[in-house]
Amino acid sequence: MLDAPNSQYRILSAATVPAYLQTLPAVVDRLGGAPSDWTVRDVADGNINSVFLVDGPKGGVCVKQALPYARIHGEGWPLDINRAIYEDAYMARLAPHVGQLAPEVYSFDAEQFVIVMEKLEPHIILRRALIAGNHYPAVPGAVAEYIAQASFHTSDLAAPFERKATDVSLFSKNLSLQRISADLIFSDPYTVVWRNKLIEPYLTAWGAAFRSDVDLKSEVARLRALYFGKAQSLIHGDLHSGSVMVTAEDTRVIDGEFAWIGPSGFDVGNFIAHYIMAWYAKDEQPGDETEREAYRRLIETDIAAFWSTFRQRFLEIWRAEAGAGDAYFGDHFNDPAGASRLESLRQAYVDDIFADARGFLALKVIRRIIGYAQIADFHVIEGAEAQARAKAGALALARSLLLHPDRYPDIASVIAALPRFEAVGFDPHPSRNW
Amino acid sequence: MLDAPNSQYRILSAATVPAYLQTLPAVVDRLGGAPSDWTVRDVADGNINSVFLVDGPKGGVCVKQALPYARIHGEGWPLDINRAIYEDAYMARLAPHVGQLAPEVYSFDAEQFVIVMEKLEPHIILRRALIAGNHYPAVPGAVAEYIAQASFHTSDLAAPFERKATDVSLFSKNLSLQRISADLIFSDPYTVVWRNKLIEPYLTAWGAAFRSDVDLKSEVARLRALYFGKAQSLIHGDLHSGSVMVTAEDTRVIDGEFAWIGPSGFDVGNFIAHYIMAWYAKDEQPGDETEREAYRRLIETDIAAFWSTFRQRFLEIWRAEAGAGDAYFGDHFNDPAGASRLESLRQAYVDDIFADARGFLALKVIRRIIGYAQIADFHVIEGAEAQARAKAGALALARSLLLHPDRYPDIASVIAALPRFEAVGFDPHPSRNW
Repeated sequence: MLDAPNSQYRILSAATVPAYLQTLPAVVDRLGGAPSDWTVRDVADGNINSVFLVDGPKGGVCVKQALPYARIHGEGWPLDINRAIYEDAYMARLAPHVGQLAPEVYSFDAEQFVIVMEKLEPHIILRRALIAGNHYPAVPGAVAEYIAQASFHTSDLAAPFERKATDVSLFSKNLSLQRISADLIFSDPYTVVWRNKLIEPYLTAWGAAFRSDVDLKSEVARLRALYFGKAQSLIHGDLHSGSVMVTAEDTRVIDGEFAWIGPSGFDVGNFIAHYIMAWYAKDEQPGDETEREAYRRLIETDIAAFWSTFRQRFLEIWRAEAGAGDAYFGDHFNDPAGASRLESLRQAYVDDIFADARGFLALKVIRRIIGYAQIADFHVIEGAEAQARAKAGALALARSLLLHPDRYPDIASVIAALPRFEAVGFDPHPSRNW
Repeated sequence: MLDAPNSQYRILSAATVPAYLQTLPAVVDRLGGAPSDWTVRDVADGNINSVFLVDGPKGGVCVKQALPYARIHGEGWPLDINRAIYEDAYMARLAPHVGQLAPEVYSFDAEQFVIVMEKLEPHIILRRALIAGNHYPAVPGAVAEYIAQASFHTSDLAAPFERKATDVSLFSKNLSLQRISADLIFSDPYTVVWRNKLIEPYLTAWGAAFRSDVDLKSEVARLRALYFGKAQSLIHGDLHSGSVMVTAEDTRVIDGEFAWIGPSGFDVGNFIAHYIMAWYAKDEQPGDETEREAYRRLIETDIAAFWSTFRQRFLEIWRAEAGAGDAYFGDHFNDPAGASRLESLRQAYVDDIFADARGFLALKVIRRIIGYAQIADFHVIEGAEAQARAKAGALALARSLLLHPDRYPDIASVIAALPRFEAVGFDPHPSRNW
């Protein structure tokens, strides 16, 4: 048994949740009635935490507790329970800027490592919508707005440098989950390691091709250095289609425990990567082919809308600010020549986010196909060979993005490339110049 | 009166130092005898702290106390007294790697904000040697070794990322002194501000030229973003010729209270900048012209030796390590193709340090000539016009480095450029293409 983080810490169960919530007056008031009136559902479907949905006569809440290990793996995979502190800090830091695009936090308990927050209902996880072929046209714009607000307002563009430095000091302690990223994103896919889950024998050659490609691994090293050394803004760190909950009218970003000060392009690339994997998976998923093809067109539209909204909103937010930040110091650009130059510097700043996103996008595709934590978009495909066919296309695009970034100067060129890699199959070598 | 940092805090004077040191058994033992046997000299010649040298029958110590304000300015310039904590942490972090290239710390007192350390005698400040025309040929190599060890061993090249992240978390709190850098290096010289000390009327046009040059200010913004966002290694933050104490046999780096996790090129560029200013100042300093010209040749040799030693030592240290760091992950480069590639990646890494250093070098020259904290190399020149002539040359080189970095691909091209800017004079415009 792992040591408990403190003598008062107790792992919650559906049976003990009501007694715990009773100690939180604000939550009692929100639920209404008494603990005996409350229903509790254990809904943990992520990999690492406990999550309960609680309903009372008046309303509902979501209860998320960090465990001293990764839930899906049990005590064999210890994980710093303090991640709940960073998730709460992440949500608190962004709340003024992202507002209704994240759940409201009602209570944080640093002894039990429990966040009680807004219950999202009837929201579903975006990934399930993508798999089911249900389309929510407001999602790309909402997530773009979320990342744009976060990327701007937690950077040195928005405030004197001391503000970001204080965030850096805090989130640089969130090490346990960054170790997962270091290993699963930046190391494992390019080595032989027990955690990898490459589909044998179909993707064997692809795996070997990635492990032996020194150009590709050099680019991985460059991006890894950016992740751990480019302290640009507060990033979510795990912002994929499983971290977004949606209805037709409402979009929320959840699960910020991987929070880190890193390159703004990381979340952007991660989110696009999961659209791209959904696109490749769609071809082999069950269901009507015409409908699946039509849904692919919607995914393409979503990717384009996501990036163009991010770009536009980031620039708008920046233009509306009065140069309060230490970056692009206001007094240096307040004459007409400076104002004109500042506009082109803004464009260059967003181009730089795109360039970073393009690289991280590729790494995120690769880690979900070769590495440990795989995704349902592919798992719902019947048959290993069909799964591998879909995955091979995504791997080929990812490799091309890493080796030939100049071919992908904008989001349109990435979208246009999707079908080019669809039928590459299981031999990675004949057209290495893809 | 500013609030004292705690009720026990007392500002030391030469009279009270012995009674204070008596409370530190290790120091008493080192001094020998009793407090009545000890002599105390107040030697503070920096700008911000109290410094005392204490001698006893057996040995001597140096006592450095942080004040809640900048000493040179008095209580009108409050300064976070916790800077002593970061200076001590900086010295402790580097001690295993730089050894005898820094003073040994005997005692740190977090209540009185006092560091008691090795007394350096008969060392003199390098700046005084440069002004006097005394040459210490071992200095460039020793400082290069110091920066190479620090830059490698505190980066992600040397250890799993958690190590640097822990340093980042600590040194990101060292805000008060970074604010000085933000203002005096990255803001003031390009605006009109009371603290600037441009020599009027001779350098008036140069000051205006810098304030109105949008290309130059764009480059300043880029370097500012690097300083506050490129978390590459632990840097000294103020490593100039006033922070190095020398004898013919011994070189020590002192005064690490500006410690920060930033671009490795910052300390490199800062140190070169002060050689370059010494070079330009030498032409107008008092003394025999032949000797001064001969000393300039020695400075050129020192600059070349400093950079080539840094480059060589950094690469050697890296090659000798077994890929223990998270950057350039060892398992990705352990086959023959990877090993070969890793060598070129190492060269590229050091080239990147040079590129950053070239930019910071220029900013350091500019801030010492236009900004608040000026240097004795120029002050010893008789007459404002002669001072300004020497400064104009340095400003012209700095501008060229910022606007035309491609003309300076290596240290030889920087050294070769020194005489080209010597006689530019007080009109910055005729040859803006300098």
